Amino acid sequence: MKRKPNRIASQLKAGRVAANGLIDRRVFLQRGAATGLALAGGIASGYAANIGDNAKPWQKTIGAPMSAGGSPSRFAQEKLKRGVLQPYGEIAPGSGASMTPIHELHGTITPNGLHFERHHNGVPDIDPAQHKLTIHGLVKRPLVFDMEALMRYPMVNRICFIECSGNSFFNTFAKPRPLPAGMIHGLVSCTEWTGIPLSVLLDEAGVDAKAKWILAEGADAATMGRSIPLSKALDDVIVALYQNGEPVRPEQGYPVRLVIPGFEGNTSIKWLHRIKVTDRPLHARDETSHYTDLLPDGKAEQFTFVMGVKSVITRPSGGMTIWRDGFYEISGLAWSGASKIRRVEVSADGGKTWGDAYLHGPILDKSLTRFSMAWHWNGEPVQLQSRATDEKGRVQMTHGQWMAKYGAGQRYHYNAMQTWAVNEHGEVSNAYL
Amino acid sequence: MKRKPNRIASQLKAGRVAANGLIDRRVFLQRGAATGLALAGGIASGYAANIGDNAKPWQKTIGAPMSAGGSPSRFAQEKLKRGVLQPYGEIAPGSGASMTPIHELHGTITPNGLHFERHHNGVPDIDPAQHKLTIHGLVKRPLVFDMEALMRYPMVNRICFIECSGNSFFNTFAKPRPLPAGMIHGLVSCTEWTGIPLSVLLDEAGVDAKAKWILAEGADAATMGRSIPLSKALDDVIVALYQNGEPVRPEQGYPVRLVIPGFEGNTSIKWLHRIKVTDRPLHARDETSHYTDLLPDGKAEQFTFVMGVKSVITRPSGGMTIWRDGFYEISGLAWSGASKIRRVEVSADGGKTWGDAYLHGPILDKSLTRFSMAWHWNGEPVQLQSRATDEKGRVQMTHGQWMAKYGAGQRYHYNAMQTWAVNEHGEVSNAYL
Repeated sequence: MKRKPNRIASQLKAGRVAANGLIDRRVFLQRGAATGLALAGGIASGYAANIGDNAKPWQKTIGAPMSAGGSPSRFAQEKLKRGVLQPYGEIAPGSGASMTPIHELHGTITPNGLHFERHHNGVPDIDPAQHKLTIHGLVKRPLVFDMEALMRYPMVNRICFIECSGNSFFNTFAKPRPLPAGMIHGLVSCTEWTGIPLSVLLDEAGVDAKAKWILAEGADAATMGRSIPLSKALDDVIVALYQNGEPVRPEQGYPVRLVIPGFEGNTSIKWLHRIKVTDRPLHARDETSHYTDLLPDGKAEQFTFVMGVKSVITRPSGGMTIWRDGFYEISGLAWSGASKIRRVEVSADGGKTWGDAYLHGPILDKSLTRFSMAWHWNGEPVQLQSRATDEKGRVQMTHGQWMAKYGAGQRYHYNAMQTWAVNEHGEVSNAYL
Repeated sequence: MKRKPNRIASQLKAGRVAANGLIDRRVFLQRGAATGLALAGGIASGYAANIGDNAKPWQKTIGAPMSAGGSPSRFAQEKLKRGVLQPYGEIAPGSGASMTPIHELHGTITPNGLHFERHHNGVPDIDPAQHKLTIHGLVKRPLVFDMEALMRYPMVNRICFIECSGNSFFNTFAKPRPLPAGMIHGLVSCTEWTGIPLSVLLDEAGVDAKAKWILAEGADAATMGRSIPLSKALDDVIVALYQNGEPVRPEQGYPVRLVIPGFEGNTSIKWLHRIKVTDRPLHARDETSHYTDLLPDGKAEQFTFVMGVKSVITRPSGGMTIWRDGFYEISGLAWSGASKIRRVEVSADGGKTWGDAYLHGPILDKSLTRFSMAWHWNGEPVQLQSRATDEKGRVQMTHGQWMAKYGAGQRYHYNAMQTWAVNEHGEVSNAYL
């Protein structure tokens, strides 16, 4: 199919929402608007059914039989891997992270096997028959629960993201690292968690009137522990037994994980074995040695739990190449630890002009929200950005604004806008603005 | 913790919603109500931190390092398998089904590797670089799309169930088969699909005014094909490239599957390679040789696409044993091919009295909805049932009513209420009422 330049021009004019080819989704979707996309090409007059000599090899032979479990196509497997970061290498093989390849995924749900990991001393191999959860401290009735007991409690389901507070730390470095989106921003994932409201278990233990905080602690060799305000613990925190339907996997906290929607990921304690109710934060090792936010004046903010409003364009993104000019869908993810996403804007001229992206529903509280924007690339260099606003009115800063506020020493809670530079060859790379 | 009988009695009285121990969720959740559950037992006064001699083996050693992909715990793997049905064994190894173990799962999202499979001639091993989608027939511009072209179109996300029209056919047999819920009702799964609205591609091809139907055809060796009304094709049908974030897996139609929300599963053509726009249904082999609904008078209903309103209690369910009397959460799934779920009722006395179950949100159109009901089992035999109503006002029939309407020859669209009989030993089994 040969595209007609005058038709493209009229579409671009009718649908313009911002500079450098950003157009309205309705124009992109409406009858005829998609014609410009017809690189599909190849008119099938003289169509021959795909049988006989025209048939592909897989149409001529019995396929693989049914299976008890599935896996991705051999043609897709290589890209569907978490990127492993193991900065301490041989001295601490259990400390590091695996990052979700968000640039290879679509939608909002992360498959369990691709949910990011962050461990302080590796993944324990826990026998659920031996694992117990203890609630003690400022309670009327200290309690110990085995897994069978927990299974009898009322459960809730909740789709939410978990994001490591160190996500995107590569973008705090002096020069933009030439990495794909998943290696920069892939310490965020979104799944459906099922479990018992922590409030139910705390109520059963009987929380003392003097209580103000809890300590949650994991059964890994690092004994990872974090202090959480009691008000949050009684709000929407889940003692999770299932993730995307399945029992929580070992690297996500099997057999039981605390899930704290919207808070930095390290507070969602994996392999949960103890909750102590206290009158003050315990200043546990992991919340004093790190997980504080260093400011330029040398002071540090502590207990900055709530993850910021954030977004990232996942397609096109770093390392990809746009092979020719024409129509494309820009697609990405937005999220906030405080609320639902209200708005995402996209710019193709480095932030000078902005158009409102389409938000794909259901837009859920503290969950990944997929956004998209129709775009006609004219083959010239552009700078793509997205800017999210949440329902609390919080808006992303530019990279420059964020660095000015926190300085080069801060590695946590980076949530500035991501800039992807597209050069005249269509090559997409990480950039700072 | 010793439970106090008078306390349990007062809770049961205050929260009663139906006979045999069904109680209100609010009573189950509210402060103190859960006390009756404290078989959790073991007061942790004299609590010793889980270090030193009290520590479990996995707390004393570095765990497994980060990984590029995850898998369930070795303690959970055995139960997390699809049940394979291969009725034609050696003569047709590629014809059969694998069933989702819904009784081992929770929440509403099905992990990709556990989504049910139904194949007519096995799973083709398709190279996406060689695969094309053709749209032809009553269109102005016949089109051929390669996968790269499809990737440029605007996409939508949609969580929905897919259910095989033959799901639950074991319950049309004369005697109730002693099977777990997943082997009876596990030809249903629910995932997030991402892809291009079929209406966009049809609009681009330019649908002729005479068109009323489409034929959708797969590239498997069975050349599976189904006729779909054009009105549905232009409504909410998706040309899906992703499932739960990942590229659609081979057994689900890689590289591209038609997803038809609410219609019987066989219409969601896998390995989609051809759509022909027509003025009438084509009466393809797979819609005349089977996939019709045989009535007792020997006539058959054809093109009964929309799946009925349905529900099943997944816990407790067939093959499970309730080890002692006390409080439990009854949990299950409800769905309808026509709309959202409006209501689910639960009975513990074989349908004489009913209580409204709690519906867990988000309640999405044509999706699995999780329901739950608080229950106190007193140790005596009971019959558990659930009854769903959708927003169209459709309600499930009893097994007896359904069999009277369709007779013993019909294997498709079984959607009667499931009865689980609990005997005095707490053993749960399939029953007809």
